[in-house]
Amino acid sequence: MEKIKPRTLSGFMELLPAMQEQMEQIMKTLRETYALYGFYPLDTPVLESAEVLLAKGGGETEKQIYRFQKGDSDLAMRFDLTVPLAKYVALNYGQLTFPFRRYQIGKVYRGERAQRGRFREFYQADIDIIGDGQLDIINEAEIPSIIYKTFAKLGLQRFKIRINNRKVLSGFFEMLGLHAQAGEIMRTIDKLEKIGADKVREILMEECKVSVEQADEILKFITLDGGTQGILQALAQYRGRSELLDQGIEELTTVATYMEDFGVPADHFEIDLTIARGLDYYTGTVYETTMLDHPEIGSICSGGRYDNLAEYYTDKKLPGVGISIGLTRLFFILQDKDYLNQNPPACPADVLILPMTEDVGASIALATRLRDAGVRVQLHCEKKKFKAKITYADKLAIPYVIFMGEDEIRNDIIALKDLSTGEQTNTGFDEALARIREGLAQRASGTVIMEKNIQ
Amino acid sequence: MEKIKPRTLSGFMELLPAMQEQMEQIMKTLRETYALYGFYPLDTPVLESAEVLLAKGGGETEKQIYRFQKGDSDLAMRFDLTVPLAKYVALNYGQLTFPFRRYQIGKVYRGERAQRGRFREFYQADIDIIGDGQLDIINEAEIPSIIYKTFAKLGLQRFKIRINNRKVLSGFFEMLGLHAQAGEIMRTIDKLEKIGADKVREILMEECKVSVEQADEILKFITLDGGTQGILQALAQYRGRSELLDQGIEELTTVATYMEDFGVPADHFEIDLTIARGLDYYTGTVYETTMLDHPEIGSICSGGRYDNLAEYYTDKKLPGVGISIGLTRLFFILQDKDYLNQNPPACPADVLILPMTEDVGASIALATRLRDAGVRVQLHCEKKKFKAKITYADKLAIPYVIFMGEDEIRNDIIALKDLSTGEQTNTGFDEALARIREGLAQRASGTVIMEKNIQ
Repeated sequence: MEKIKPRTLSGFMELLPAMQEQMEQIMKTLRETYALYGFYPLDTPVLESAEVLLAKGGGETEKQIYRFQKGDSDLAMRFDLTVPLAKYVALNYGQLTFPFRRYQIGKVYRGERAQRGRFREFYQADIDIIGDGQLDIINEAEIPSIIYKTFAKLGLQRFKIRINNRKVLSGFFEMLGLHAQAGEIMRTIDKLEKIGADKVREILMEECKVSVEQADEILKFITLDGGTQGILQALAQYRGRSELLDQGIEELTTVATYMEDFGVPADHFEIDLTIARGLDYYTGTVYETTMLDHPEIGSICSGGRYDNLAEYYTDKKLPGVGISIGLTRLFFILQDKDYLNQNPPACPADVLILPMTEDVGASIALATRLRDAGVRVQLHCEKKKFKAKITYADKLAIPYVIFMGEDEIRNDIIALKDLSTGEQTNTGFDEALARIREGLAQRASGTVIMEKNIQ
Repeated sequence: MEKIKPRTLSGFMELLPAMQEQMEQIMKTLRETYALYGFYPLDTPVLESAEVLLAKGGGETEKQIYRFQKGDSDLAMRFDLTVPLAKYVALNYGQLTFPFRRYQIGKVYRGERAQRGRFREFYQADIDIIGDGQLDIINEAEIPSIIYKTFAKLGLQRFKIRINNRKVLSGFFEMLGLHAQAGEIMRTIDKLEKIGADKVREILMEECKVSVEQADEILKFITLDGGTQGILQALAQYRGRSELLDQGIEELTTVATYMEDFGVPADHFEIDLTIARGLDYYTGTVYETTMLDHPEIGSICSGGRYDNLAEYYTDKKLPGVGISIGLTRLFFILQDKDYLNQNPPACPADVLILPMTEDVGASIALATRLRDAGVRVQLHCEKKKFKAKITYADKLAIPYVIFMGEDEIRNDIIALKDLSTGEQTNTGFDEALARIREGLAQRASGTVIMEKNIQ
């Protein structure tokens, strides 16, 4: 038979088993953490009507989208999880209870130019809180605290959540009489870190029609420093000159204060007035998250407050706040920069049982008993040499092997070998189980991400 | 602004939050159970090259597939999880260790005619064990035992796993000199339950060119009964007349025996010689799973043994055994037939904290403390009337509410209300936590599926 060459499309992540096990651990941690904060899981289709998905229309998105006809239907694969959320909330408005808190971890699709570290199919992990008509500011402090907790649980420590408030920027530009150019200015200052102050000044003056004095004012403002308290104090000096700016300062102060109450250590967040987030969509607090040792990667988790989630579908005002982790890209970075904990290595089973008798009934019974006790077990009944079976356990990094020979069966003994130490013990079932559990507890005490790898 | 009508494509399941919570519980149970049996998780792309996905080509599949061009690429959405597995194993052969055990829970796509209970996007939950060149028969007994354990853990009890062996059928037809028509005959007898013996006899004689005597022999054979032991004894009488039949009987006997060792109760499986599974792909043991009270639904979990997983991609002989649950369809049925446990109702949080002071710092601190103790907490800080907040808890079925007023904060008291009983207690943190945990443990003791609903 003529063979087709097996291949996976470029830009589509497909992991080897041990890596997938780690990805799975990360997704499990995300699900569990999000659940602690009272979020519903949500699952929406990958395929939607193109008309619905592109309601907002235009832009880069439309060029990158996977869109096609099937019969009479004009279909498209989702390119983010926000548009499907907007559709879902508009569609089910009458059956939802607000504030509606949901998380969704799902694949999205963008036909970008393929390059290393860029994906065409990738997981996003989103959380959002949607209000009906209004949504309290406290949610804007809670959301980043969830991000902090999530990364901390994964084992990441050297990261910082950077917050700003769009009203602060808009109010400030309004104050300077630059309301008309506000959007353009924000997109420019957003690039400060990348292109530097001189270049920003140049663009402000040449493209945004800003005067020298105004450019100076802007650069001075966005580079205010002195830590959270210092910046808040400096901002206080601007109060009373624009209602919007005052409101922004008020919100930023509230969010910063409550973030500490929510358990985000002071050294894990900072106010950064250059953060604007490109999208006009955001109207209040905005967030970015940076890995301290890899600022070049950009934000690994971003989001913010918006006033109208679903304006393309409904007249209802649905303000919300949300944040998104580009999970596939993050995983690629963690792998690439050696942040993934390989000690202990990921493995699909805790115990490998090697039956050494013709009748494997006793081995099966033991496997069933261990599984009932929550131990992950594989039985190895293939017709292979003893040594090949031990190699199998080694390759899969299974920590324990149990030999089931005639003697063990007759005497009701568990011959348990710890492959990491080479130590073998012959005990009763309970003692063997206790030993396995102790070992597994030790192995489980690590986190998926391990920064010591890179220090 | 002109609005686009929000809608979800027909044939695409999109659940309301509480239902999604239950679907999530089911998927979690699946993942956890599969892991106990030493399976790696696997995740492959939804999109593949059409050439790769359609390597086998032809048939119904090709008509139903979502296939499209993007740039120069001819792409298709996967229509099952078996073809991607075959591709994965062929592609990564050198880096995998065999037997390779993997599970995958993922969405697949078939553009079928839309009708109630039929889905175009649906989850499949597959487990497979792939050998390199050979694979021991014991795996054919282990696979259905995992299915038994999975359904039992979900709370389903009234179901039966029906097994057969393709070699038994092929050997028997060979013995009758009907080798050439074997495939056709199998597809015919597969319909016995649906169309009845007379119709089967008619098709056998008219379309499969089978004589009256042969048709009688076939019908007698496939309707052998007497339970597992009775059928095995009856089959023994046929031994010695076809090597293939003998081998099939041997395998069927081994599988039936070991299934009991693996913990499948005798009344939860049976040998059914009419089961052939349409696909030529299967070569040994085959499985179907039927809900006793809903035989009309057909099989909710099917699979079998095959000799060549990846013959379209590689010359390597990769025998395997696997089984697949059509999860979306199963969930639809469970919902439709009222098998889903609504008591306690699914809810996104265990506790709702209602701050009753301006400064919500103490409420936030309490939320953080409870979450650190593993309790799922929502804070309700919206500017709404007290009654609306209690209604919110009721609607979401959150079992506990904690009121945080000035008195409570000053005296370090937790005012905990159990919404199911209406009872309110004012205690210290530890006692409140113990009370919550006790209540949650009780709520968690049920299963997702509850058959008493339908009795």
